[in-house]
Amino acid sequence: MQSSEKLDLKSLIRSIPDYPKRGIIFRDITSLISHADGFKQSIRDLSAPYLDKGIEKIVGIEARGFIFGGAMADYLGVGFVPIRKQGKLPGKVVAQDYSLEYGTDRIEMHDDAVASGEKVLLVDDLIATGGTAVAACELLQSVGGQVEGAAFVIDLPDLGGVSLLKERGIDVHTLVAFEGL
Amino acid sequence: MQSSEKLDLKSLIRSIPDYPKRGIIFRDITSLISHADGFKQSIRDLSAPYLDKGIEKIVGIEARGFIFGGAMADYLGVGFVPIRKQGKLPGKVVAQDYSLEYGTDRIEMHDDAVASGEKVLLVDDLIATGGTAVAACELLQSVGGQVEGAAFVIDLPDLGGVSLLKERGIDVHTLVAFEGL
Repeated sequence: MQSSEKLDLKSLIRSIPDYPKRGIIFRDITSLISHADGFKQSIRDLSAPYLDKGIEKIVGIEARGFIFGGAMADYLGVGFVPIRKQGKLPGKVVAQDYSLEYGTDRIEMHDDAVASGEKVLLVDDLIATGGTAVAACELLQSVGGQVEGAAFVIDLPDLGGVSLLKERGIDVHTLVAFEGL
Repeated sequence: MQSSEKLDLKSLIRSIPDYPKRGIIFRDITSLISHADGFKQSIRDLSAPYLDKGIEKIVGIEARGFIFGGAMADYLGVGFVPIRKQGKLPGKVVAQDYSLEYGTDRIEMHDDAVASGEKVLLVDDLIATGGTAVAACELLQSVGGQVEGAAFVIDLPDLGGVSLLKERGIDVHTLVAFEGL
């Protein structure tokens, strides 16, 4: 890829109607990441605002956040920390509950994964209502982590997640937006 | 990291006794990947045999395979394809069942993720009995994919997975081995 040629990342994201349920259009990043230059540009563009921020760890949210976050950790030359769904991590964990449309869910992180004062960047493929992302920030802050930012490939602005993070003082960086649900 | 200084990756992998059940020692790669130089060296060492093999896609197995596979795809400048557990992919899928100790499990891949004749490299964090890896190779070959190799950070040689893959003509590359269960 020539550095002067920028791809239109949005056009590489496939839209799947009525998934996971009727009336929802699912924005599918698998078509973006299977495209070598599209994937590489995503990693560069997601990382760009944080090159000089002294990030010490990338924190990726299971499971698609692992794909982008793993590549960003290698690109930025820092460590990677997974935030996983309940019961998936083998060591001692800290946990955070968050609300879903019906009921609650729980995410977990190893309790020694982020040190107090460590500068971390949260990464996921998509931000919608922001429930998981806010819970992830609370989890990181609960162990003293300094959340330098949260980076997402896709923003669904009508669902308000970015605003929710910004209200909490989190710097947010997204690459493409899809209006509507 | 100086290229002349090689880290001992094995010493960066944490062992957790009695997880997920009594008598099993779980080999935990989260301590390796949170180490910036350890993670970077893993990606370089896993990729090394395949630099000149014309790999076109990295195929990562959910979920830890996404972390290493995503970084390898970016490092090698190729696309990334996820193989996921049943019901997680939004598009049309091909599926493969495989046996567990009790019962069976199923993995899935988008049916258009790998083209016929495309050269792919399978990636996961660990190979044990090889059940999932063999199923993943069968899935890839079912759509005409050319499996150029399978790369794993950890081999548990006593469980025989590497032998199983080699019997099927798959080139296998692993970084560290732990004897016993």
